[in-house]
Amino acid sequence: MKLEENQAFLTFHESGSAIFDNGNCNRSEGLRSRNSIIISQAASRSIFSSKISPAAERVGFMLGEHDEEEKEESLPRLFTQLNELFTVNEDMEWRETARWIRFEEKTEDGGERWSKPHVTTLSLHSIFELRTCIEKGTILLDTKKGSFKEIIETVMNRKIANNTLNEDEKERIMYTLLQKHVHQPKKSRRKTMTNMITSSCRGKKAAEKSAVVELSETPLKEQLKNKFRKKIPDGTEAANILVGEVDFLNRPFTAFIRLKEAVLLGSLTEVALPSRFVFILLGPKVKMKAYHEIGRAMATLFTDELFQKIAHKATDKEELIAGIDEFLDELTVLPPGKWDPTVRIQPPKFLPSPLKRKQMLLRGSSCNGSLHHHEEKLAHGHPHVSEELKKTGKFFGGLIKDIKRKAPWYWSDFYDALNIQCLSAILFIYLATITNSITFGGMLGDSTDNMQGVLENFLGTAICGGIFCLFAGQPLTIISSTGPVLVFERLLFNFSKDYNFSYLEFRLWIGLWVSFYCLILVATNASYLVQYFTRFTEECFCALISCIFIYDALKKMINMTYQFPVNWDYNINHVTQYNCKCVFPETANYSLVNATLYNNSDSCFNGDIPPLNCSEISQSECLEFGGHLEGNSCNYVPDIFLMSIILFCGTFLFSMSLKKFQTSRYLSASIRKLIGDFSVILTILFFCGVDFLCGLETPKLIVPNEFKPTNPTRSWFVFPFGGNPWWVCLLSGVPAILITILIFMDQQITAVILNRKEYKLKKGGGLHLDFFCIAILFIVTSFMGLPWFVSATVISIAHMNSLKMETTTSAPGEQPKFLGIREQRVTGLVVFILTGASVFLSPVLKYIPMPVLYGIFLQMGVAALGSIQFTDRLHLLFIPPKYQPDLIYLRHVPLRRVHLFTVIQMLCLVILWILKSTIAAIIFPLMLLALAVIRKAMEWFMSLHDLSWLDDILPQSDKKEKEAENEETDSSDSEISELKYQDKMPEINISVN
Amino acid sequence: MKLEENQAFLTFHESGSAIFDNGNCNRSEGLRSRNSIIISQAASRSIFSSKISPAAERVGFMLGEHDEEEKEESLPRLFTQLNELFTVNEDMEWRETARWIRFEEKTEDGGERWSKPHVTTLSLHSIFELRTCIEKGTILLDTKKGSFKEIIETVMNRKIANNTLNEDEKERIMYTLLQKHVHQPKKSRRKTMTNMITSSCRGKKAAEKSAVVELSETPLKEQLKNKFRKKIPDGTEAANILVGEVDFLNRPFTAFIRLKEAVLLGSLTEVALPSRFVFILLGPKVKMKAYHEIGRAMATLFTDELFQKIAHKATDKEELIAGIDEFLDELTVLPPGKWDPTVRIQPPKFLPSPLKRKQMLLRGSSCNGSLHHHEEKLAHGHPHVSEELKKTGKFFGGLIKDIKRKAPWYWSDFYDALNIQCLSAILFIYLATITNSITFGGMLGDSTDNMQGVLENFLGTAICGGIFCLFAGQPLTIISSTGPVLVFERLLFNFSKDYNFSYLEFRLWIGLWVSFYCLILVATNASYLVQYFTRFTEECFCALISCIFIYDALKKMINMTYQFPVNWDYNINHVTQYNCKCVFPETANYSLVNATLYNNSDSCFNGDIPPLNCSEISQSECLEFGGHLEGNSCNYVPDIFLMSIILFCGTFLFSMSLKKFQTSRYLSASIRKLIGDFSVILTILFFCGVDFLCGLETPKLIVPNEFKPTNPTRSWFVFPFGGNPWWVCLLSGVPAILITILIFMDQQITAVILNRKEYKLKKGGGLHLDFFCIAILFIVTSFMGLPWFVSATVISIAHMNSLKMETTTSAPGEQPKFLGIREQRVTGLVVFILTGASVFLSPVLKYIPMPVLYGIFLQMGVAALGSIQFTDRLHLLFIPPKYQPDLIYLRHVPLRRVHLFTVIQMLCLVILWILKSTIAAIIFPLMLLALAVIRKAMEWFMSLHDLSWLDDILPQSDKKEKEAENEETDSSDSEISELKYQDKMPEINISVN
Repeated sequence: MKLEENQAFLTFHESGSAIFDNGNCNRSEGLRSRNSIIISQAASRSIFSSKISPAAERVGFMLGEHDEEEKEESLPRLFTQLNELFTVNEDMEWRETARWIRFEEKTEDGGERWSKPHVTTLSLHSIFELRTCIEKGTILLDTKKGSFKEIIETVMNRKIANNTLNEDEKERIMYTLLQKHVHQPKKSRRKTMTNMITSSCRGKKAAEKSAVVELSETPLKEQLKNKFRKKIPDGTEAANILVGEVDFLNRPFTAFIRLKEAVLLGSLTEVALPSRFVFILLGPKVKMKAYHEIGRAMATLFTDELFQKIAHKATDKEELIAGIDEFLDELTVLPPGKWDPTVRIQPPKFLPSPLKRKQMLLRGSSCNGSLHHHEEKLAHGHPHVSEELKKTGKFFGGLIKDIKRKAPWYWSDFYDALNIQCLSAILFIYLATITNSITFGGMLGDSTDNMQGVLENFLGTAICGGIFCLFAGQPLTIISSTGPVLVFERLLFNFSKDYNFSYLEFRLWIGLWVSFYCLILVATNASYLVQYFTRFTEECFCALISCIFIYDALKKMINMTYQFPVNWDYNINHVTQYNCKCVFPETANYSLVNATLYNNSDSCFNGDIPPLNCSEISQSECLEFGGHLEGNSCNYVPDIFLMSIILFCGTFLFSMSLKKFQTSRYLSASIRKLIGDFSVILTILFFCGVDFLCGLETPKLIVPNEFKPTNPTRSWFVFPFGGNPWWVCLLSGVPAILITILIFMDQQITAVILNRKEYKLKKGGGLHLDFFCIAILFIVTSFMGLPWFVSATVISIAHMNSLKMETTTSAPGEQPKFLGIREQRVTGLVVFILTGASVFLSPVLKYIPMPVLYGIFLQMGVAALGSIQFTDRLHLLFIPPKYQPDLIYLRHVPLRRVHLFTVIQMLCLVILWILKSTIAAIIFPLMLLALAVIRKAMEWFMSLHDLSWLDDILPQSDKKEKEAENEETDSSDSEISELKYQDKMPEINISVN
Repeated sequence: MKLEENQAFLTFHESGSAIFDNGNCNRSEGLRSRNSIIISQAASRSIFSSKISPAAERVGFMLGEHDEEEKEESLPRLFTQLNELFTVNEDMEWRETARWIRFEEKTEDGGERWSKPHVTTLSLHSIFELRTCIEKGTILLDTKKGSFKEIIETVMNRKIANNTLNEDEKERIMYTLLQKHVHQPKKSRRKTMTNMITSSCRGKKAAEKSAVVELSETPLKEQLKNKFRKKIPDGTEAANILVGEVDFLNRPFTAFIRLKEAVLLGSLTEVALPSRFVFILLGPKVKMKAYHEIGRAMATLFTDELFQKIAHKATDKEELIAGIDEFLDELTVLPPGKWDPTVRIQPPKFLPSPLKRKQMLLRGSSCNGSLHHHEEKLAHGHPHVSEELKKTGKFFGGLIKDIKRKAPWYWSDFYDALNIQCLSAILFIYLATITNSITFGGMLGDSTDNMQGVLENFLGTAICGGIFCLFAGQPLTIISSTGPVLVFERLLFNFSKDYNFSYLEFRLWIGLWVSFYCLILVATNASYLVQYFTRFTEECFCALISCIFIYDALKKMINMTYQFPVNWDYNINHVTQYNCKCVFPETANYSLVNATLYNNSDSCFNGDIPPLNCSEISQSECLEFGGHLEGNSCNYVPDIFLMSIILFCGTFLFSMSLKKFQTSRYLSASIRKLIGDFSVILTILFFCGVDFLCGLETPKLIVPNEFKPTNPTRSWFVFPFGGNPWWVCLLSGVPAILITILIFMDQQITAVILNRKEYKLKKGGGLHLDFFCIAILFIVTSFMGLPWFVSATVISIAHMNSLKMETTTSAPGEQPKFLGIREQRVTGLVVFILTGASVFLSPVLKYIPMPVLYGIFLQMGVAALGSIQFTDRLHLLFIPPKYQPDLIYLRHVPLRRVHLFTVIQMLCLVILWILKSTIAAIIFPLMLLALAVIRKAMEWFMSLHDLSWLDDILPQSDKKEKEAENEETDSSDSEISELKYQDKMPEINISVN
């Protein structure tokens, strides 16, 4: 190859063109529009010359020009269809072989099936060929309305005028182009099945008969009925690509046509869409499917946002070619031999948005790039802190702003709930709530001598939950009594007993003090402090709560061995030796027993001889009459415990698999979604059925069915005076401080987790308002002697998760997008009303076995634990670096720093657990506060750069952060640093099996 | 842009060069070497011109030239390392930022960690830039040995001679290039952990102190000790790429150096490898990491096999550039905006081999392509039929060939077994075998009035298995009594009973007849008929056997409810009312009872009053003395059944999860492999432990511990005459035909499955020899009255799977390759010896609970069922087309045809199942034969094209097949049709989450 040729080849990338000025960086700095970006980008990328690539400049100029005119106008999407010419028994016909909206769908070999949507991979060669085609072919821009026939006639006449076509060829091309067009029918599943046998017997021909013989002028029925229409966004226009090999041409015939207004071109497109572009390529026969590849290249260009704009706005051939060149310059390239070209690449879950692409170009620009870059960084700010947490400086300022912000949404909070999904959420959360109430109620009852029992818990949950749901800032929060509060109640009760205080009255005063402190916190807008609760703190807390859930579920199951002991040494052969008799002491009142049982038993007592064996009397009767049980089977209960284990494990595994089923491939997406939404309910129903069919006396859910205080010595109202000396009222202020810290941490961490950006909440939260409600409810519960309530992390997360919304329709290959949470007040409200009404539901609820509910608890704990990054990092400890997933923070933070962070978090969790479980529980709230301090202390030995990847940045370190950023911009891979603040970090996992 | 420029740009792809003749297709047809392929490929790909691309021609010429000289010599692999210049506190240093063997590994942000190996994605721009670099830079080919310093001095002097460099620049470049080189240390895991705290406190500087200040002339310690060395194949040479920005140059300085002989260049490379290539690029500062990208492009070129050859053989700059152009032409291209360029693409499991790449080029060639293509197709032939199944035409010809083929391997069959893996296989298969023996032994015993019981099964398995393993053609086969044979034995026994025949003698004669027929089949080389057993037949049979395994396991568990009934109505409150007494009839021999039990019990009998309650007497004693049990707890056994359920499900789920764990990311690969290999043993041990700790009397494995026939009326040898009339000997010939068919099918289908190509058996099988052994063993077992044995599908597959070999080391990113099966005779032999010795092992084996073994059976059945394509296709029925995996046959066969095929197969399976279970069992063998007929009949309504994708092609349809192929070549996507015969079909699954 001669040197001059190479030189010329390179000029394409280097030299400027004569038509445009060789703009330099300084000149374009003033512009902030897209063209300056692209121009400077191209300039900065060549290491040999600082001149600007003409293609980029031209494109930039074109786009910029139009940008200013119509900044907000977005172009319609394009549906691109590739039709190829096939010859079947001497007849020609056009068949649709591929289509694009964003990704390619190819007609599979059998011709009846679309391939999976995939990223189009092209050979570089075909793009070059396409470029030549456009260059040599006829370009017709802004053609007037007309039928397909008229349009191609115009093209042909233009060609004839240029002497590049003769009349004979024209006729034959016309004939070819107007052959019938066979579209890929999108058969429904049922039809396919019924057609299966018949069509396979009748052979292939039958299917073809229904097709028209020539291109129809009006849209066909099948076009209008095509179900694929639903997948195409409204306003989409079509681009038709027709390629084929014919024998009467000796050089390729190419035409690129743009219509002035999109128009329906008869039966040309699969779906009845107005067409905007037509690309025709006919030529002599060659091997290697060259035309097919060129057609695909054209289609791929049409799916590119930038090229779409250029194609819409180009005024001449050169501009189109500049568009292709710009496209070429941005290609990603895979080396041959390292990648199997037949592999179909699945669409990535996260696409670089056009915006991002612009930014990436921008990033590279040498003159104005850094400025923009910095602006962007600042815009991100603290991704963790939302607008509602800004300091106002005013007394109750935060609360007032919260109310103002939430008020406009209030009515929508009710009518937004009209969806089947809410029903599932209600059932699920209702069951979780009553199970929770029973569990905590039972434990509270044990700890407080039934001063606060299950019924108090039900009543409290119903009243407080209802009020909270009606007035709180974040009505998706589910409140309940929580583990840490329970620990404190136990301490209080023991203290009152030791010092002979009236427990309820003492508690009332503490409650009032807590409420007072909380109101002060609200007034001083203390909620803005949650900015110091970074991911580190949240995860520690969430992990702790999840562990408590798991631990409690397991403990309850293990405790069942005491309730239903198994006779592990049972010997089948000695069956005759197992019995249990009721033995009455010598002094028992036989006559009473006799009198009662006389009618039923045939003389269990022979006169006044003490009975040796009184098998007819039941255990409860025996104990009632003062007897006791004797025998080697009295202390054992057969089968119940093992059955409970089966129910427990079964529930856990079954609900986990149903959740997994949601992401499997089976059945249609909507059915899977339904199953996933109702997974917990289905599991509970299934195992209740199993339990019912077995008929064993497993422990069942027992809800109180009478409305009265559990402990008969108390009433529904606590009097503030009389029980204790007067100074106790003041003394209560001291423990109240600790409880206030606890309540604040417990409530606010949960609130922060629920208001996370990931959930895309539209109506926003209201941390100040939430906390205000909690404070008010403290007064109510204290006066009524009900348990104290705060947000329950795990159940609230489950509530949110059961209300997720996703897009139902999307172009093939596009991932359904997470739209947000169904934010409303109804689910919570109904749950709490149902909780209150549970007293009347006991006949139904009594069929639910407790082990099933414990299984659900376990599942909730495990699910909550699995949703935090901390768990991922814990896993990393056990994965050799070679096999570690390509997590974004691993790309940027040395592994040992990641491990160090994880180990510190683990230690905090262990310390929290120990504090919670031991006598030191009283300082537990302080330890929660200490988490934020520990996090702050970590800045001493871990760089802000590392922490910013693993955690959020603390607000006060603004200055330092900026330094860190500057450092980062220099040293790190700036191209990918923007991934950091993406909602979900793209983790790449391409497996080819 | 001016038109001339575009023209010039395109000439690069179209026009020929002046140096070489414009060869055309006809000229190059004579050559069959690589160059012709590449030349014609390029020629055929342009639709505008038939001239040959000069790059391709030149490359083809170069490669072809050398090919003839040194056809077999393969070039050493290249290890490529990218070093970049960094400036730290005014000091410069070179840091390794990426490395390649096949795939790219990048130094992550933190600088202490290698990224996951991934496919390099480049921007097209950087390759163009590289091309300019090579073109403008200095090329030094075949430099003599010398240190790095000498080499760069030579380059510099050349540049100075050309007036492209001055002395001052030379000095500064020399100084820069000889700065210290910091390599990425591959720290061990333990070190990392211990360094973690210390280094994080001491900061970054500490780590750097240990590095040298200037490039060392000799390899450093760390280079020699580098563990990465192990990953690099022997004989690998290094290519060093040095890129950097310096401030004293105002234009890029480029040098491409090839050394005449690879030489160790001091501490330049990370690992102490001799270097062959050095590429240097220094230049003025630019943005966008341009140098980095050019360095990556250079490295990617070095990983390309074709370019490697060109780089090795190029004689001037033009040849190198032609290599780059050829590389450019073969690139795969991803459109911008549809693919996130920061995504790291994991290496595909199956790479297009360089051979395939050649073929793909070849495929496109217009003149000689189709010829080659056809040759290749023919070479594939019937992938299903191995060399050993060809008809010989001679009497016993197949058998003799089998023996001749297997004999040379005989001794290696013993010493090849020296591996820990075999121990695991032995334990696993031993337990499976004895469980199998006990199961089938028990069932046979039930069916034949204990004429053949557990002990006979043990003895038979040991003798026959041992002989088979020693002499058979495929010693990996495990033989056992199978379900279909069991069905026949039952029929035989009932027939003998009805007609008062001596069962064993009747059976002996049948056995002799079967043996005789079998020997005829061996003599006539009937095993070649297995070619008609296509995937369809195999899968039906395998699915049937797997279903029997699953069904049996479940049935055994359900039967346990009869053995250990659960009192589902147990009422805890009525514990006193549950008892069980031993009641003696009035006429019982009290004195005997009294005499026996007098010492132990304190007067259970009061004189001669019949005892009402005699709790001290055990169940067995009670029954022994003629008593019977009375009471409402007599018929129930607590806990045992539920415990068995827990053990059964636990075993199944646990062993499944352990198997899954093998493919997880946790722990090192070797530990996971060990856990995977021993998963069954670990599961059994674990659940034996659980069972032992619980102490419940679950049913245990009981092996006979005395050596005597189960039925005392029979001996160890069956006399052929005496029991039956003489004509029975002849009559036996009739049922023997059916049994022969059954044996033939059962044995051969299993043999075909085991000898599949997927297993990559090196020593080959011996179907004739196997069948010969089976025939001989029939004589032995018939005379000894032992059960008949054939190959057991499921256990044999489990045996094969437990002996899989994979490569342990591979370059980063390359998948461990499946090497084959550890083919030997020892595992089988030891298993059968152990089976024979099990009589003495009963004290240990009695701790194994039966439910655990049933769980293993279930797992084996499920695993075998999961391994066949039929299951995949069944799943497809429930997956909407949209979500179906990208299976290769779905790309080529219409979905309804796939479903039709599946449904027919399903129906066959159902019919087989019904036949097996009902009275019609006698025609079961015929039905197996019918499968082949049904498969043949399917050709009537399904095209050979479809069947060839879903199944194998039947041998006799050679002619039709060719037609189908021709058709296929025209209509289908010929590029991917070769995937069809790949061992595993690439299913693409790229998920980005």
